[in-house]
This record gives sequence, C-alpha cells and structure tokens, in this order.
Amino acid sequence: MGYRKLLTKKMEFSASHRYWNPEWSEEKNREIFGKSAGPYGHGHNYCLELTVEGEVDPETGMIINLDDLKTIMKEVLEDFDHKHLNEDNARFKDLVPTTENIARVLWEIFEDRLEGSEKYRLYRVRLHETRDMYVDYWRDGQ
Amino acid sequence: MGYRKLLTKKMEFSASHRYWNPEWSEEKNREIFGKSAGPYGHGHNYCLELTVEGEVDPETGMIINLDDLKTIMKEVLEDFDHKHLNEDNARFKDLVPTTENIARVLWEIFEDRLEGSEKYRLYRVRLHETRDMYVDYWRDGQ
Amino acid sequence: MGYRKLLTKKMEFSASHRYWNPEWSEEKNREIFGKSAGPYGHGHNYCLELTVEGEVDPETGMIINLDDLKTIMKEVLEDFDHKHLNEDNARFKDLVPTTENIARVLWEIFEDRLEGSEKYRLYRVRLHETRDMYVDYWRDGQ
Amino acid sequence: MGYRKLLTKKMEFSASHRYWNPEWSEEKNREIFGKSAGPYGHGHNYCLELTVEGEVDPETGMIINLDDLKTIMKEVLEDFDHKHLNEDNARFKDLVPTTENIARVLWEIFEDRLEGSEKYRLYRVRLHETRDMYVDYWRDGQ
Amino acid sequence: MGYRKLLTKKMEFSASHRYWNPEWSEEKNREIFGKSAGPYGHGHNYCLELTVEGEVDPETGMIINLDDLKTIMKEVLEDFDHKHLNEDNARFKDLVPTTENIARVLWEIFEDRLEGSEKYRLYRVRLHETRDMYVDYWRDGQ
Amino acid sequence: MGYRKLLTKKMEFSASHRYWNPEWSEEKNREIFGKSAGPYGHGHNYCLELTVEGEVDPETGMIINLDDLKTIMKEVLEDFDHKHLNEDNARFKDLVPTTENIARVLWEIFEDRLEGSEKYRLYRVRLHETRDMYVDYWRDGQ
Repeated sequence: MGYRKLLTKKMEFSASHRYWNPEWSEEKNREIFGKSAGPYGHGHNYCLELTVEGEVDPETGMIINLDDLKTIMKEVLEDFDHKHLNEDNARFKDLVPTTENIARVLWEIFEDRLEGSEKYRLYRVRLHETRDMYVDYWRDGQ
Repeated sequence: MGYRKLLTKKMEFSASHRYWNPEWSEEKNREIFGKSAGPYGHGHNYCLELTVEGEVDPETGMIINLDDLKTIMKEVLEDFDHKHLNEDNARFKDLVPTTENIARVLWEIFEDRLEGSEKYRLYRVRLHETRDMYVDYWRDGQ
Repeated sequence: MGYRKLLTKKMEFSASHRYWNPEWSEEKNREIFGKSAGPYGHGHNYCLELTVEGEVDPETGMIINLDDLKTIMKEVLEDFDHKHLNEDNARFKDLVPTTENIARVLWEIFEDRLEGSEKYRLYRVRLHETRDMYVDYWRDGQ
Repeated sequence: MGYRKLLTKKMEFSASHRYWNPEWSEEKNREIFGKSAGPYGHGHNYCLELTVEGEVDPETGMIINLDDLKTIMKEVLEDFDHKHLNEDNARFKDLVPTTENIARVLWEIFEDRLEGSEKYRLYRVRLHETRDMYVDYWRDGQ
Repeated sequence: MGYRKLLTKKMEFSASHRYWNPEWSEEKNREIFGKSAGPYGHGHNYCLELTVEGEVDPETGMIINLDDLKTIMKEVLEDFDHKHLNEDNARFKDLVPTTENIARVLWEIFEDRLEGSEKYRLYRVRLHETRDMYVDYWRDGQ
Repeated sequence: MGYRKLLTKKMEFSASHRYWNPEWSEEKNREIFGKSAGPYGHGHNYCLELTVEGEVDPETGMIINLDDLKTIMKEVLEDFDHKHLNEDNARFKDLVPTTENIARVLWEIFEDRLEGSEKYRLYRVRLHETRDMYVDYWRDGQ
C-alpha cells in the first residue's frame, strides 16, 4: 500500500483584467459580468498555489527542490505579474480572464514546464482571486 | 482525459450554540462536552467554504456566476448568522450543533438549492469553527 | 533620548452576547441593534491583543516573561471564554457587551492584574470581534 | 485621566492602477516605477482599515454604529472598487495612484463624510496594497 | 450513497533543523541545500494540520472529541516543539528533516496513536513550513 | 496642521535561537527560559514589519521607493535568515536573542542604513515571533 506525497508552493501576482465577451452587446456584458465589465478593467492580488506530486528522493528528502520550483514559478508568472491580462498576455486574446480560465492556462503552462521529469508531476493548480474565492483545476482520475 | 474544475466561495457567519444531549445527565454532558455544555451557550465566527464543481461555460468563462452563488449563500445563511443555533434554527431542535452536524445540515440545504442545474453541482462543504479547526463533508466516490 | 518597547500577546476566546438596552422598547432595540438584538444572542471568536510596555531586563532580555503573561491572560479569560457574556459574566449585568465595552472591561481587569510591577504596565487592549472589525482602548497621553 | 477609544473597520476593494508621471520620459518612468509603469496597468485587492475615534455612547455601548459606518464605506468605495483608478476616478487625473496618494485621498473623502459629528472623528486611514505592504495616514498631534 | 466526514485540527510548533547529507561533500551539500546547510541550522513555526476521518457519533455529534485529539497532538508534538530536530529527535538521526520527511514521520506516529479506534482513522497530514509552502501526506486509494 | 505618512513593509526570515544566560546555572536557565533553554535551540518564521515615515514626493507619489526599501531589507536580513542567531550572528554573542533584543538590534541596523536621507526616517520596528506574539520598538516622542 502506497502513500501520496505532495508539495505545494504559493506565489502572489498582481494583475488586472476585464470581463468582456465581444460577441455580446454592451448591455448583455453588463448584465452578466456586472462591475467586472468596466472598460479599463480592475485588479487583484492573485495567489497561486501550485501542487506537485512525486516520490521523496532518499538522498535529498525532497519531492522537488524548492529553489528550482520557485525559479520556474517566477519565470512563468512574469507574463502575469503587473500585467493587464487582456492586453498584455496573448493567452487571453480570445479568452475571458476569469479565475477559471486563468487557472486552466496556468495548468497548461506548468504542466508543460514540469513535463519530462520522472520524479514528479503537476498535481493541482489552485488560484485565489480574493481571500474569499478560489478555483481548483486538476486532472480527472489522478 | 478530462479535468476537474471547482470554484470555492467563503462566507462568514456569527452564531452561538450549546452542546447538550437531553438524554444524558448534567454530569455526563459536562464530562463529554466540557465548557461547551454551559446553559446559555457561547459562539464563533464560523467560516463556510462552499465548493461547486462543473464545466466552464465557454461564453462566460465561469463555472457558476459568483454573484448568483453569493445571493444563494446569503439567503441560506440568514438562518445561521446572528443566531443561537439551538434556539433559533429548527434544524438543531434534536441535533447537537457540533461543527460536524452544522456541516451536514449545510450540505443538505445547499445540495437542495443547487439541484436542477445541469452545469454544476455541490462538491464539498468545509466549515471552520475557529482558525484552528474545520470539518469537511462531501459525497463518497465523487 | 529613549525608546519605547512593547510586547503584544494575542489570545482567542469564543463567546456569545446580545445587544439589548432594557430601557428601550423592543422596537427601538431592533432599530438600533438590528440582528444583534435577537433574544438568544449570537457569538464570535474574539481575538484579544494585549500590549504591555516596559524596559527590557538586561539579564533575561524580556519586558515580561511570556509564560507569566499567558498564565494571567488564561486566568482572566476564563470568565469570557465559552460564555454568554450577558448571562454568565457579572460585568455585563448592566452593560451592553459591545466590543467597545468588552475592551474597556478587559482593560480594567488587566490593569488591575498587572498593577504593582515596576517593570511593565498595561499599554493597550485591542479586541477583534471579527476579522474585519476591532476596537482599541488605551490611556490618554501615554 | 482619560482614555482613547477607537473602532476600526476593514473593507476590501479590487482596483487597478498605473504609475506614470506625464512630465517624465518613458525611460525615466520605467526607471523609477519599474513594472508598475506598464501602459495598461495592473491591480490589487486593496484592504482599507478605517479608524474612528470617539466616546462610547452609554446607551448603545458604541462609538459609532457599525452598520452606519459600513454604509458610508461602501458608498465611498464605489468609486474605487472594480475601477482603474487612473481612468475611472477623477481624483487621480493628475495624481499618481500610489498607495500613499490613495490613502490621502481616502482620508480627505472620509474626513468630509464623518465631519459634523460631535461623537466621533476620523482617526486614521491604513491602506494595504498587498499582504506585505501598507501605508498609514493620520493628522499630526492627535 | 455515503458521505465522507473529516475533522481537521491545526497545531503549531517551533523547531529548527539542518539539511545535511553526511555521505556528500560540504560542497555538494551547499550546492543542493543552499542556505539550509548552515552548520547550526535555522528554524520555522511549523503548522500541522491533522485530518481524521470517521462517522459522526449520533449521541455526541462528533467524529472525535476535540479535547482528546488536542491531548494526543500535544503529547506527540512535545518531541518536536522547541527542538532542533536533527539533534533532539531520534527520528531524524539518519533522515534529513525536510518538510516531506517530517510529514511522513508525523503520519507514522499519529497513525500509531489513533490505531485501534473503530470510529475514526488518520486521513491526512498537512505540514506548513512557512506561510507559502506545505506538504501533504496520505494513504493511496483512501 | 500637518499629517503623518508612514509606509510599512513586511519581510519574513527563518531563524533559530537559544535562550541562555551564561552567568546563570543550568537550573536557573531552565527555570526562567523553560523550553527555550534547550542546548541546540529551536526556531521561528519571524516576520519583520519595518515602518518608515516621511513626506510624499510630489513627483513619484512615494515616501520611499519600495524596490529600494526591499533591497535594503534583504541585505540586512541576510545575517538573520536561515541562521542560528546565537551562533551565526555576532550581535548576539553576549545578548540573549529574545524578540525584544532582536527588535532592538534590527532598529539599530536599519536606523543606520536609512540615515542620511532628508526625505524619510525609520519610525518603528515590529517583529512577530509567532502569529500570536510581537514586539514593537520605536523612539520616544516621535
């Protein structure tokens, strides 16, 4: 019988976004997205919790070296931190930057970055938009 | 291969409660429930984390509209916020309002409220009684 | 030119209370106190921050021994923790247990308990009722 | 010898901003403001702590009715929440919306709103931009 | 269809540790462990979240009596709190006290302590090393 | 009538320490310092809140450039982070590294580092040892 071992690292980034579906009228955007449809956007201190699953290396006692993970996370978040996601990040050209969609995009990027390791793999992306709301994204059946 | 997408919203409510089993002697109540058996009760700032699972709507980028979820949560919590649960809430007439039991009652109410949607369903109720204790309630096998 | 040195210790207690002025009609109580006027009360996880000012003892490096301060705080809070303040605590017989009044009562009790020391004195009582509201009480001109 | 009594209420708002001095070159803006000079801005979950000082009313046990204070704060923050401060709020037409400047603007607005009361007065504005940085603004000599 | 019911209790302990593999050169230890390889160690306020799963007793409304759980946790943590884990705790004689390894050791100890109950069982150990990093340890397939 | 403007920046560091007065017997050390007298020490995630007071520069809207302040804080904390304060930091050769004494040492270092500026000055050092205890250090009469 085995055990699951997971390491989670949190990192904040400050970004702005606007909720707007170009295929809808302004009226419908206002109705569905409310205050989030303002033309210039608004922002949040997002907090990303990135969870990696793997085996504990008997020599280091680690699933993944935390310094390596921090380096990867900082590199990835350079395209998100201090950005207006709709304007500055090509991933949200045609994708409303809701917390759900940002979480999915982060999953795809981190899965790609962590791929190739035989020791660990991406387990979950949790993204907090405010202290009272967060979204989880993970692969089914894992 | 699919992905799981969950949205969690937190909301606080301030309530009081008393731990008391009427089928026991006062002595046994004191022994089992300790300070929580006081006749007039005591209280907490409960923090509810309600998790909803679903698909992300491609038009809105959302699992559930957060404003709708907030409205439902506020309505439900009206029977809990600023209440003495044993005295003011009929659900606890014959049920000790422990965190475990409050979590189950909240599950039942929210499952009922969210029922009927084809887009999302209740996934988990997490209820914090203090900053150092919480209870989780979810359906087996989901 | 001297320096101010202060040590603050936090401690939580879970209590319930009711806002009710017996000299008012039920209608006026409801108007002024709103949901807090419910007959059976409701509750909070209060968080007390007690600040002591003094000189740092050169032998111990301490303003006050933290274990001693914890003992005093636990003793004092026995009359508040897991209590219904209106019913169980004589201090609130004729005093509405608002955060403002609880803070003042705690100041009076702790000032009394810490009195007599030449090394330190009570500097401030801060009392959090929820994570979003707190009251401060301190002596003018200190 | 008198006592100081203060009540503090926290409220969050989500806004975006851009640091840009139009009298400087783009190069100098980038040098001084770094990542905060991006053309579309970025955002934060600001947390305002508003502190009011006053006497405790013997009938209500309150410095200020918390419901009244919440109403005022919500009204004032409507011009800040879900806004791009440079674009949506006239106060920052010619004022870089740094935390220092937002705090001063909030002071001026709240001082105006609370003026006229003989029972309480604005004591301090504390504004958190992230969980690790905040600015305080208060009147000298109070 | 059944439901899962879990209770989680947090408890902090303050410990120090050193990352050092005696089979490696000092150079390699420095390369892999960085600042954590310092000869005298450094420390953290660890926060343990211990999760117990079980059925809710219909008479008490509890999965496990919280006072009993607190007693067990305090007893177990006596070997960790205010200790230098490498020097004071025999479990880390030949085991680098990384968060991953401390979590596994805590799992083994608590599983042993909770064994024998027909009502509940250990479900998960979550160990926070800082506010931004934590490790989870649980049994596969549960 | 003027206004006070202060900016506070938090930064964490992980250190270990031992409470021990070499002029006392082991017995007296154990009596006064309790668990903190253990020979190998124990540790904490300290959180430093450094407050700077000054005027808001009309061109930048800042009291102090936050990037500059972060650079200074990181440099200073290199002698504290991931260190055993008694062993690795010469300041605590003959000074018990209590929170009170660490706060004073940090005050002296930061006052020195910030000296010479005509725009701002050190206002306060607040040092959290755990989430429930902190020490303040500031100059009298400021």
